Amino acid sequence: MSKATSDQAAALLANAEFYAAFSSGDFSAMDALWSTVETVLCVHPGQKPVVGRAAVMNSWRDLFDLGGTPIRFDRDSVVMIRGLAFVSCLEYLGDVLLSATNVFVWEAGAWRLVLHNAGAVADPRAIARDTRRDEILH
Amino acid sequence: MSKATSDQAAALLANAEFYAAFSSGDFSAMDALWSTVETVLCVHPGQKPVVGRAAVMNSWRDLFDLGGTPIRFDRDSVVMIRGLAFVSCLEYLGDVLLSATNVFVWEAGAWRLVLHNAGAVADPRAIARDTRRDEILH
Repeated sequence: MSKATSDQAAALLANAEFYAAFSSGDFSAMDALWSTVETVLCVHPGQKPVVGRAAVMNSWRDLFDLGGTPIRFDRDSVVMIRGLAFVSCLEYLGDVLLSATNVFVWEAGAWRLVLHNAGAVADPRAIARDTRRDEILH
Repeated sequence: MSKATSDQAAALLANAEFYAAFSSGDFSAMDALWSTVETVLCVHPGQKPVVGRAAVMNSWRDLFDLGGTPIRFDRDSVVMIRGLAFVSCLEYLGDVLLSATNVFVWEAGAWRLVLHNAGAVADPRAIARDTRRDEILH
Protein backbone atom coordinates (compact mmCIF):
# COMPACT_ATOMS: atom_id res chain seq x y z
CA MET A 1 0.00 0.00 0.00
CA SER A 2 1.52 3.38 -0.98
CA LYS A 3 1.85 6.12 1.64
CA ALA A 4 -0.86 8.12 -0.12
CA THR A 5 -3.25 5.15 -0.06
CA SER A 6 -2.36 4.42 3.55
CA ASP A 7 -2.98 8.10 4.50
CA GLN A 8 -6.39 7.98 2.84
CA ALA A 9 -7.30 4.68 4.54
CA ALA A 10 -6.27 6.14 7.90
CA ALA A 11 -8.40 9.25 7.29
CA LEU A 12 -11.42 7.08 6.46
CA LEU A 13 -10.77 5.11 9.66
CA ALA A 14 -10.70 8.37 11.65
CA ASN A 15 -13.97 9.31 9.97
CA ALA A 16 -15.47 5.97 11.08
CA GLU A 17 -14.19 6.62 14.61
CA PHE A 18 -15.95 10.00 14.53
CA TYR A 19 -19.29 8.33 13.78
CA ALA A 20 -18.64 5.62 16.41
CA ALA A 21 -18.08 8.34 19.04
CA PHE A 22 -21.11 10.27 17.73
CA SER A 23 -23.37 7.21 17.77
CA SER A 24 -22.37 6.06 21.24
CA GLY A 25 -22.35 9.59 22.69
CA ASP A 26 -18.78 9.03 23.92
CA PHE A 27 -17.62 12.55 24.72
CA SER A 28 -14.02 11.58 25.56
CA ALA A 29 -13.62 9.77 22.26
CA MET A 30 -15.18 12.71 20.40
CA ASP A 31 -12.95 15.17 22.24
CA ALA A 32 -9.83 13.15 21.34
CA LEU A 33 -10.77 13.21 17.65
CA TRP A 34 -10.65 17.02 17.29
CA SER A 35 -7.49 19.05 16.72
CA THR A 36 -6.07 20.71 19.82
CA VAL A 37 -3.78 22.96 17.75
CA GLU A 38 -5.91 24.46 14.96
CA THR A 39 -9.02 26.63 15.26
CA VAL A 40 -11.81 24.13 14.56
CA LEU A 41 -15.23 24.69 12.95
CA CYS A 42 -18.51 22.78 13.12
CA VAL A 43 -21.84 23.21 11.34
CA HIS A 44 -24.50 20.96 12.84
CA PRO A 45 -27.56 20.37 10.61
CA GLY A 46 -29.87 23.35 10.53
CA GLN A 47 -27.59 25.44 12.73
CA LYS A 48 -25.22 28.35 12.28
CA PRO A 49 -21.44 27.78 12.29
CA VAL A 50 -19.68 27.11 15.59
CA VAL A 51 -16.03 28.28 15.65
CA GLY A 52 -13.29 27.42 18.16
CA ARG A 53 -12.56 24.28 20.15
CA ALA A 54 -14.37 25.23 23.37
CA ALA A 55 -17.58 26.18 21.53
CA VAL A 56 -17.43 23.13 19.26
CA MET A 57 -16.87 20.71 22.13
CA ASN A 58 -19.66 22.38 24.11
CA SER A 59 -21.96 21.76 21.14
CA TRP A 60 -21.10 18.03 21.24
CA ARG A 61 -21.56 17.91 25.03
CA ASP A 62 -25.00 19.53 24.66
CA LEU A 63 -25.91 17.00 21.96
CA PHE A 64 -24.65 14.02 23.97
CA ASP A 65 -26.52 15.25 27.07
CA LEU A 66 -29.72 14.55 25.12
CA GLY A 67 -28.74 10.85 24.97
CA GLY A 68 -27.40 8.52 22.28
CA THR A 69 -27.65 9.40 18.60
CA PRO A 70 -28.11 6.30 16.45
CA ILE A 71 -26.26 7.75 13.45
CA ARG A 72 -24.93 5.64 10.58
CA PHE A 73 -22.88 6.64 7.54
CA ASP A 74 -21.90 5.26 4.14
CA ARG A 75 -20.63 6.30 0.69
CA ASP A 76 -17.54 7.76 2.38
CA SER A 77 -14.77 9.01 0.12
CA VAL A 78 -11.62 11.01 0.76
CA VAL A 79 -9.77 13.68 -1.20
CA MET A 80 -6.34 14.91 -0.09
CA ILE A 81 -5.90 18.69 -0.48
CA ARG A 82 -2.56 20.24 0.54
CA GLY A 83 -2.06 17.44 3.08
CA LEU A 84 -5.51 17.78 4.65
CA ALA A 85 -8.02 14.93 4.28
CA PHE A 86 -11.45 16.05 3.05
CA VAL A 87 -13.94 13.22 3.68
CA SER A 88 -17.43 13.30 2.15
CA CYS A 89 -20.14 10.88 3.23
CA LEU A 90 -23.84 10.42 3.70
CA GLU A 91 -25.32 10.19 7.20
CA TYR A 92 -28.49 8.39 8.29
CA LEU A 93 -30.26 9.63 11.40
CA GLY A 94 -33.56 7.79 11.77
CA ASP A 95 -35.51 8.71 8.65
CA VAL A 96 -33.33 11.74 7.92
CA LEU A 97 -30.64 11.55 5.27
CA LEU A 98 -27.77 14.04 5.56
CA SER A 99 -24.70 14.98 3.57
CA ALA A 100 -21.47 15.67 5.48
CA THR A 101 -17.99 17.01 4.91
CA ASN A 102 -15.38 16.18 7.55
CA VAL A 103 -11.89 17.68 7.22
CA PHE A 104 -8.90 16.21 9.08
CA VAL A 105 -5.33 17.40 9.69
CA TRP A 106 -2.44 15.09 10.56
CA GLU A 107 -1.53 16.05 14.12
CA ALA A 108 0.51 14.22 16.79
CA GLY A 109 0.47 10.99 14.82
CA ALA A 110 -3.24 10.89 14.06
CA TRP A 111 -5.87 12.42 11.79
CA ARG A 112 -7.72 15.06 13.82
CA LEU A 113 -10.90 16.91 12.84
CA VAL A 114 -10.84 20.62 12.02
CA LEU A 115 -14.27 20.79 10.32
CA HIS A 116 -17.56 18.88 10.50
CA ASN A 117 -20.30 20.30 8.28
CA ALA A 118 -23.56 18.36 7.96
CA GLY A 119 -26.92 19.21 6.42
CA ALA A 120 -30.12 17.37 5.53
CA VAL A 121 -30.60 16.09 2.00
CA ALA A 122 -33.92 17.48 0.81
CA ASP A 123 -35.22 14.49 -1.06
CA PRO A 124 -33.86 11.09 0.01
CA ARG A 125 -35.64 9.53 -2.97
CA ALA A 126 -33.26 11.43 -5.28
CA ILE A 127 -30.31 9.76 -3.57
CA ALA A 128 -31.97 6.36 -3.86
CA ARG A 129 -32.45 6.95 -7.59
CA ASP A 130 -28.81 8.10 -7.96
CA THR A 131 -27.60 5.06 -6.06
CA ARG A 132 -29.51 2.76 -8.38
CA ARG A 133 -28.15 4.65 -11.40
CA ASP A 134 -24.60 4.35 -10.02
CA GLU A 135 -25.10 0.61 -9.61
CA ILE A 136 -26.22 0.35 -13.21
CA LEU A 137 -23.44 2.50 -14.66
CA HIS A 138 -20.48 1.29 -12.62
CA MET B 1 -1.25 45.21 7.90
CA SER B 2 0.63 41.94 8.70
CA LYS B 3 0.88 39.22 6.05
CA ALA B 4 -1.48 37.01 8.07
CA THR B 5 -4.08 39.80 8.27
CA SER B 6 -3.60 40.56 4.59
CA ASP B 7 -4.06 36.84 3.69
CA GLN B 8 -7.27 36.72 5.69
CA ALA B 9 -8.59 39.92 4.12
CA ALA B 10 -7.81 38.54 0.65
CA ALA B 11 -9.63 35.29 1.47
CA LEU B 12 -12.70 37.23 2.62
CA LEU B 13 -12.52 39.24 -0.63
CA ALA B 14 -12.41 35.99 -2.64
CA ASN B 15 -15.43 34.81 -0.64
CA ALA B 16 -17.26 38.03 -1.58
CA GLU B 17 -16.30 37.47 -5.23
CA PHE B 18 -17.79 33.97 -4.99
CA TYR B 19 -21.15 35.40 -3.90
CA ALA B 20 -20.97 38.13 -6.57
CA ALA B 21 -20.48 35.46 -9.26
CA PHE B 22 -23.21 33.33 -7.67
CA SER B 23 -25.69 36.22 -7.46
CA SER B 24 -25.12 37.41 -11.01
CA GLY B 25 -24.99 33.89 -12.47
CA ASP B 26 -21.61 34.70 -14.04
CA PHE B 27 -20.29 31.27 -14.96
CA SER B 28 -16.86 32.49 -16.16
CA ALA B 29 -16.28 34.34 -12.90
CA MET B 30 -17.42 31.30 -10.91
CA ASP B 31 -15.21 29.00 -12.97
CA ALA B 32 -12.17 31.24 -12.38
CA LEU B 33 -12.72 31.13 -8.62
CA TRP B 34 -12.30 27.34 -8.29
CA SER B 35 -8.95 25.55 -8.03
CA THR B 36 -7.73 23.98 -11.27
CA VAL B 37 -5.10 21.91 -9.44
CA GLU B 38 -6.83 20.27 -6.47
CA THR B 39 -9.79 17.87 -6.46
CA VAL B 40 -12.67 20.17 -5.47
CA LEU B 41 -15.86 19.39 -3.54
CA CYS B 42 -19.27 21.05 -3.38
CA VAL B 43 -22.36 20.39 -1.27
CA HIS B 44 -25.33 22.42 -2.49
CA PRO B 45 -28.17 22.80 0.03
CA GLY B 46 -30.23 19.64 0.33
CA GLN B 47 -28.04 17.72 -2.09
CA LYS B 48 -25.44 14.98 -1.89
CA PRO B 49 -21.74 15.84 -2.28
CA VAL B 50 -20.36 16.63 -5.74
CA VAL B 51 -16.67 15.73 -6.17
CA GLY B 52 -14.27 16.77 -8.94
CA ARG B 53 -13.94 19.94 -10.97
CA ALA B 54 -16.01 18.85 -13.99
CA ALA B 55 -18.94 17.69 -11.86
CA VAL B 56 -18.79 20.75 -9.59
CA MET B 57 -18.69 23.20 -12.50
CA ASN B 58 -21.55 21.32 -14.20
CA SER B 59 -23.57 21.78 -11.01
CA TRP B 60 -22.99 25.56 -11.19
CA ARG B 61 -23.83 25.64 -14.91
CA ASP B 62 -27.10 23.79 -14.21
CA LEU B 63 -27.91 26.24 -11.42
CA PHE B 64 -27.08 29.30 -13.52
CA ASP B 65 -29.15 27.93 -16.44
CA LEU B 66 -32.18 28.42 -14.18
CA GLY B 67 -31.47 32.18 -14.11
CA GLY B 68 -30.03 34.59 -11.55
CA THR B 69 -29.86 33.72 -7.86
CA PRO B 70 -30.33 36.78 -5.66
CA ILE B 71 -28.10 35.48 -2.85
CA ARG B 72 -26.63 37.69 -0.13
CA PHE B 73 -24.21 36.85 2.68
CA ASP B 74 -23.00 38.29 5.97
CA ARG B 75 -21.33 37.36 9.28
CA ASP B 76 -18.32 36.12 7.27
CA SER B 77 -15.26 35.09 9.25
CA VAL B 78 -12.06 33.33 8.28
CA VAL B 79 -9.83 30.81 10.03
CA MET B 80 -6.43 29.82 8.60
CA ILE B 81 -5.69 26.08 8.93
CA ARG B 82 -2.37 24.78 7.57
CA GLY B 83 -2.32 27.57 5.00
CA LEU B 84 -5.88 26.99 3.78
CA ALA B 85 -8.54 29.65 4.41
CA PHE B 86 -11.75 28.30 5.98
CA VAL B 87 -14.49 30.93 5.60
CA SER B 88 -17.79 30.61 7.47
CA CYS B 89 -20.76 32.83 6.68
CA LEU B 90 -24.52 33.02 6.59
CA GLU B 91 -26.35 33.13 3.25
CA TYR B 92 -29.73 34.69 2.49
CA LEU B 93 -31.72 33.32 -0.44
CA GLY B 94 -35.17 34.90 -0.47
CA ASP B 95 -36.72 33.86 2.83
CA VAL B 96 -34.26 31.00 3.31
CA LEU B 97 -31.32 31.39 5.70
CA LEU B 98 -28.33 29.12 5.11
CA SER B 99 -25.02 28.40 6.79
CA ALA B 100 -21.98 27.95 4.55
CA THR B 101 -18.35 26.86 4.77
CA ASN B 102 -16.09 27.88 1.89
CA VAL B 103 -12.49 26.63 1.86
CA PHE B 104 -9.81 28.30 -0.28
CA VAL B 105 -6.23 27.37 -1.24
CA TRP B 106 -3.62 29.88 -2.39
CA GLU B 107 -3.00 28.98 -6.03
CA ALA B 108 -1.38 30.93 -8.87
CA GLY B 109 -1.45 34.17 -6.91
CA ALA B 110 -5.07 34.01 -5.78
CA TRP B 111 -7.34 32.31 -3.26
CA ARG B 112 -9.19 29.53 -5.10
CA LEU B 113 -12.12 27.45 -3.82
CA VAL B 114 -11.70 23.76 -3.03
CA LEU B 115 -14.92 23.35 -0.99
CA HIS B 116 -18.35 25.01 -0.85
CA ASN B 117 -20.75 23.41 1.63
CA ALA B 118 -24.10 25.10 2.27
CA GLY B 119 -27.21 24.03 4.16
CA ALA B 120 -30.41 25.62 5.37
CA VAL B 121 -30.65 26.90 8.92
CA ALA B 122 -33.71 25.28 10.46
CA ASP B 123 -35.04 28.19 12.46
CA PRO B 124 -34.04 31.66 11.28
CA ARG B 125 -35.62 33.12 14.42
CA ALA B 126 -32.91 31.38 16.49
CA ILE B 127 -30.26 33.27 14.50
CA ALA B 128 -32.12 36.54 15.00
CA ARG B 129 -32.19 35.89 18.74
CA ASP B 130 -28.48 35.03 18.77
CA THR B 131 -27.68 38.17 16.80
CA ARG B 132 -29.52 40.29 19.32
CA ARG B 133 -27.76 38.51 22.19
CA ASP B 134 -24.38 39.07 20.47
CA GLU B 135 -25.20 42.74 20.15
CA ILE B 136 -26.00 42.94 23.84
CA LEU B 137 -22.98 40.96 25.04
CA HIS B 138 -20.24 42.36 22.80
